[in-house]
Amino acid sequence: MVSSFFSPGLLTAEEKRKSTGNAKLSPQTQACIECHKIYTPGIVKDWLSSRHAVTKPEEAMKKPALEKRISVNSLPDELKEYAVGCYECHSRNPEKHTDNFQHMGYKINVVVSPNDCRTCHPTEFEQYTVSKMGNAYRNIMRNPVYHTLVNTTDGIKKVENGKIVFQNASYETLHETCLGCHGTKVEVKGMKKVYTGPAMGEVTVPDLTNWPSQGVGRENPDGSIGACTACHPRHSFAIEIARKPYTCAQCHLDPDVPAWNVYKESKHGGIYDSKEDEWDFSSVPWTVGQDFKSPTCATCHNSLIVSPNGNVIAERTHDFGARLWVRLFGLIYSHPQPKSGDTTIIRNKDGLPMPTTFINEPATEFLIDKAEQEKRFDIMKNVCKSCHSTQWVNGHFVKLDNTIKETNEMTLSATKLMVEAWEKGIEDKTNPFDEAIEKLWIKQWLFYSNSIRYASAMTGAPDYAAFKNGWWELSDNLQRMRDMIDIKELTKKRFPEKGSDKKQ
Amino acid sequence: MVSSFFSPGLLTAEEKRKSTGNAKLSPQTQACIECHKIYTPGIVKDWLSSRHAVTKPEEAMKKPALEKRISVNSLPDELKEYAVGCYECHSRNPEKHTDNFQHMGYKINVVVSPNDCRTCHPTEFEQYTVSKMGNAYRNIMRNPVYHTLVNTTDGIKKVENGKIVFQNASYETLHETCLGCHGTKVEVKGMKKVYTGPAMGEVTVPDLTNWPSQGVGRENPDGSIGACTACHPRHSFAIEIARKPYTCAQCHLDPDVPAWNVYKESKHGGIYDSKEDEWDFSSVPWTVGQDFKSPTCATCHNSLIVSPNGNVIAERTHDFGARLWVRLFGLIYSHPQPKSGDTTIIRNKDGLPMPTTFINEPATEFLIDKAEQEKRFDIMKNVCKSCHSTQWVNGHFVKLDNTIKETNEMTLSATKLMVEAWEKGIEDKTNPFDEAIEKLWIKQWLFYSNSIRYASAMTGAPDYAAFKNGWWELSDNLQRMRDMIDIKELTKKRFPEKGSDKKQ
Amino acid sequence: MVSSFFSPGLLTAEEKRKSTGNAKLSPQTQACIECHKIYTPGIVKDWLSSRHAVTKPEEAMKKPALEKRISVNSLPDELKEYAVGCYECHSRNPEKHTDNFQHMGYKINVVVSPNDCRTCHPTEFEQYTVSKMGNAYRNIMRNPVYHTLVNTTDGIKKVENGKIVFQNASYETLHETCLGCHGTKVEVKGMKKVYTGPAMGEVTVPDLTNWPSQGVGRENPDGSIGACTACHPRHSFAIEIARKPYTCAQCHLDPDVPAWNVYKESKHGGIYDSKEDEWDFSSVPWTVGQDFKSPTCATCHNSLIVSPNGNVIAERTHDFGARLWVRLFGLIYSHPQPKSGDTTIIRNKDGLPMPTTFINEPATEFLIDKAEQEKRFDIMKNVCKSCHSTQWVNGHFVKLDNTIKETNEMTLSATKLMVEAWEKGIEDKTNPFDEAIEKLWIKQWLFYSNSIRYASAMTGAPDYAAFKNGWWELSDNLQRMRDMIDIKELTKKRFPEKGSDKKQ
Repeated sequence: MVSSFFSPGLLTAEEKRKSTGNAKLSPQTQACIECHKIYTPGIVKDWLSSRHAVTKPEEAMKKPALEKRISVNSLPDELKEYAVGCYECHSRNPEKHTDNFQHMGYKINVVVSPNDCRTCHPTEFEQYTVSKMGNAYRNIMRNPVYHTLVNTTDGIKKVENGKIVFQNASYETLHETCLGCHGTKVEVKGMKKVYTGPAMGEVTVPDLTNWPSQGVGRENPDGSIGACTACHPRHSFAIEIARKPYTCAQCHLDPDVPAWNVYKESKHGGIYDSKEDEWDFSSVPWTVGQDFKSPTCATCHNSLIVSPNGNVIAERTHDFGARLWVRLFGLIYSHPQPKSGDTTIIRNKDGLPMPTTFINEPATEFLIDKAEQEKRFDIMKNVCKSCHSTQWVNGHFVKLDNTIKETNEMTLSATKLMVEAWEKGIEDKTNPFDEAIEKLWIKQWLFYSNSIRYASAMTGAPDYAAFKNGWWELSDNLQRMRDMIDIKELTKKRFPEKGSDKKQ
Repeated sequence: MVSSFFSPGLLTAEEKRKSTGNAKLSPQTQACIECHKIYTPGIVKDWLSSRHAVTKPEEAMKKPALEKRISVNSLPDELKEYAVGCYECHSRNPEKHTDNFQHMGYKINVVVSPNDCRTCHPTEFEQYTVSKMGNAYRNIMRNPVYHTLVNTTDGIKKVENGKIVFQNASYETLHETCLGCHGTKVEVKGMKKVYTGPAMGEVTVPDLTNWPSQGVGRENPDGSIGACTACHPRHSFAIEIARKPYTCAQCHLDPDVPAWNVYKESKHGGIYDSKEDEWDFSSVPWTVGQDFKSPTCATCHNSLIVSPNGNVIAERTHDFGARLWVRLFGLIYSHPQPKSGDTTIIRNKDGLPMPTTFINEPATEFLIDKAEQEKRFDIMKNVCKSCHSTQWVNGHFVKLDNTIKETNEMTLSATKLMVEAWEKGIEDKTNPFDEAIEKLWIKQWLFYSNSIRYASAMTGAPDYAAFKNGWWELSDNLQRMRDMIDIKELTKKRFPEKGSDKKQ
Repeated sequence: MVSSFFSPGLLTAEEKRKSTGNAKLSPQTQACIECHKIYTPGIVKDWLSSRHAVTKPEEAMKKPALEKRISVNSLPDELKEYAVGCYECHSRNPEKHTDNFQHMGYKINVVVSPNDCRTCHPTEFEQYTVSKMGNAYRNIMRNPVYHTLVNTTDGIKKVENGKIVFQNASYETLHETCLGCHGTKVEVKGMKKVYTGPAMGEVTVPDLTNWPSQGVGRENPDGSIGACTACHPRHSFAIEIARKPYTCAQCHLDPDVPAWNVYKESKHGGIYDSKEDEWDFSSVPWTVGQDFKSPTCATCHNSLIVSPNGNVIAERTHDFGARLWVRLFGLIYSHPQPKSGDTTIIRNKDGLPMPTTFINEPATEFLIDKAEQEKRFDIMKNVCKSCHSTQWVNGHFVKLDNTIKETNEMTLSATKLMVEAWEKGIEDKTNPFDEAIEKLWIKQWLFYSNSIRYASAMTGAPDYAAFKNGWWELSDNLQRMRDMIDIKELTKKRFPEKGSDKKQ
């Protein structure tokens, strides 16, 4: 079948083995491949190495519960006969897709969305869509506080008559920075012609905004949110890639979310680096001690984990916060996880859409309660206990609790100095993110307090807790704030006209 | 044997192969596994993959000298018959272990210490115990100078009436930071009940302080120092892991000890990254050019290295400073290695427990002499010469000597500015680690001078010698100190009451 | 043959397989090995694992065009019979080699230069020699502007009477820093005796300056430039190593050229990290989708890439800028690639040897024109299109164009503040690289603008575009410059004698 598209010599042993399976390709997918083996051979070959290319969804449904990689119970007829090929995914739900277009005689969607993947993976869709990750675009772009931080940071600054003049951030730059992880809003502006090269010449395609885009909270042309390909990259969609830490590492890294940096330098990460080649990142369920001997991100946060004798240690989830009780990421203080993945609905006591106030009062009604925290904490501890004694695990988390308390206190200390600077008129609180002392204050909670918490949570990376973005910086930064207030107070008195002229 | 604990289907091919060996498990170890295969399956499986699980110490002793992985000459009777299982290690020397307790009918030590490993590995114990690494807890916690740095850095700072008020560092935070690498003091406070989960309910165990703890200089409940598991992590204790650089990397990393960062970016590290999968990290002895073609940390610093024709190039040592003549890590200047691994005994000319004075006079009587330096230098050069010509090696070390000289000079320049600031009353030398200019001074010797030296020692990472924590920062930082003195002098005069009120 | 030098038991399976080939070793190479298997066994073994050790150049010439790893059409007689061994390389062109010497009865060159490799690889020699990389030593050491930056950064600073006194950088420190990548000038000062150890005693060898040296633009004792071993390290010279990103990573890393850091954190890099073990880094030509499924540096920048059906996607080149239209690396603004690899010949409108002026006027006549830019852009886009649609690729590069424009604007803003500081006499422009505000200005274009551009070019590493050396720093740094001008203006007025006394 497949070998009619590629001369046999070009199929790898792996591909040949797989292509002897029962899964036939649909006529439409064969037509796709006929051309795309010439025009985009890399992704055709990548897909050929995938499980999709050799699996009929109907057979995937018949597996024992723990081994299932598909969560649907009944399939549309047109998917029963064939492997999951180009056409099967790129033709789903055309009525919803504003990016659907006539392409060489077929109606094709440019963007495959989570709502399309839902056809076979509904549970994953449902968990993901209500998660913070699925809402990542909304949470940063539609929360005025965070959007101000983003806009202030990423906007061009011109110097006119010696003054710094702020401009709004361009969408392109947001796309390269925050929205690289959070996702962009992808819409269809109409159709356009693109010159594809000498072989095919001009082709007419939907004109997409903010494309390409792979961020986790992408807003799609079919109205759905998210991008499964953020972690299951095209077109192998390999579970191995999603389970290896490099995938999470793309976004969860220093200086603000150094989960990857900390993991890499932890004992767990060191064992992983030494031994990963001997482990099995593909088996479902994933057996502790047998498939792997040290956890990756996926082990603790979302994979279905079982013991060698088949007991379930943790259920699979695609709501990546579902096993978390506390949110280490301070906004501006560490706090219990929010109830809803859409965090724009939160209002703290000051009326701001933030989970804590400036003096660390949590917006309790929007955060999970004690009982829910305990429940999630137990799920996580159960993973730890696959290898560690209860005393070990408890001792570990007592330290984490202390770290949260102390880093919150250090954030509060910085906030007090910030307030002093505002009250003295040294800096202007209208935009709390655009002046020198304000930026030191941001670093206190966003970089240093966060780094220490991640380091503590994984008992790793003493440098991230100590000299590198840890307590060294946390303490030094406070001193810098104090000194900067004293210095700017003086500068201001000497040059009164310079005090507040740098605002937008 | 083992297969009675796990249904055959759950044993990997590797485990099956190994379990056909002669090494039987002791009845006690079998009992441990009977329960722990359910309660901590991960580590049971990990141990099953270990050499310990399939080796009788008696047979290990019979190997030819160069192939021996065990250094004892006669064994206690109870260890002769069986593989090295749970009970064999966790029941050693109960009379010394304050953490020994009755557990399901057996007397078990929670913590296995170097003194227990000594049963089979006495040479390693002896070398390690007198090393700086074995003394790492003592050296940082019982040296008042270093302890002040640690305490000042890691303590909570509150802001009261605009002033920064210092508190002592909590032990929990020391544990997450410095003691994460250096180790904690683990003592038994008594017994306590822990709820382990629905299956086993409450269990009574020794109540350990500062646990879990894996730092290299851990002080153990049996009075010994160190943690073999810092580098040979539980429960595979694999030599591969100890020989791969990820293990050393956990502690020897930037900004203060960027050995790992530099290695990774060196030619040696690049070849390692490209080719490690083809090398043998398990064979003893370790043959240059055959088992590996580029060194890891262990190659140069401690492994038994032979040439393909069997000549010994370097003897094994577990005193990791034994092949080092100079100590690159400046305190505050680079200096000859100390004679004793316990560096709290050092007194410099100023009476301080430091290997050099402020103006770089070495505490000569506590440091190795020229002859010993030459001896060690020759051992190291012999490793280099496995692949490099004498001229190459000499040329390399001439550069290193120059780097040491120049970075020491740059540290001296910073120290002169520091003294100016103290003499002018701009900062207060009572605690030399808590004010702005003092912290710039610390960065000069602890971060920048050190980074350049590590980069030079491994001819790697031009960035660590140049733009990233290298000469760029070393030069800029000096300027920052100069400017800060001028600025704070002015601030102080303008706000005389602000000059010294930030002290504890 | 080879097995007469090493007892069979010491040959690995791989080596045995290879040594059954037809390629015999020359008598001279056999003599080399006879001794060096004892004195430098590591490199002998490494060479034994190489393609050189088992290949007669004559047979290599007979391969089909796309499979050829050799670009010569006719060979010197003495190379026809034998594998490419020690003597074949170390005896080339003795008349040109001032480092040629009598060594155990043979005339040997210490340094094998690109001109020697040219014997079999003339095309690679020609491409490399005219590239920026081949000219890397000249470009940094013979351009007075860049040399001033280097000298100012790397020179020792002494503190005398409270003033910072600059010294010129030592060659040894340049060697450890900039020249670690750019290469050193290697000359023969005469002959010298070196004591090699007890076995061989003293040996007389050419006395080389600045050796060892592996930087890409090394100036060699035979008058040629470059070092092939910078990327094809001795003595396996494996194409796998050159194709893996670790090799490029040694020099192209943060903070100034964070190509490696960005790649590692990009989707391409993440897939590479997860899957590299399954790919073939050795085959020639290199087939997209089949040998690899995500690009490494070499894929986009220089390897011969074909599609699975054998179509050439990109020709091989060893001029590593040949597929680049724009130079992201700002000096001080991003600009079109220079026409010549020797950039010392450039003169901008201000008469300086730099590709742009302070206010971003490009030195157009020294830079490639629009047509050449388009041509190169098309070559690069063709690589992208192996896996991505035209719209995807176009959308990607539209973002990059915007990034270049905006980062150039942010550099211009910093330059305006710099000029203000110079005009006000706050800092002295004689040396534009040695004072506090000047260093902030350098960071703006060298660290932050560059980081954002690399992140944009690889759609990777949102942190390098955002919080880590990205827009966060780019914006904050501008504010720091503004504040520093105000503060230093005050300090200067208060301490007028301190304004300009820090110059050399």
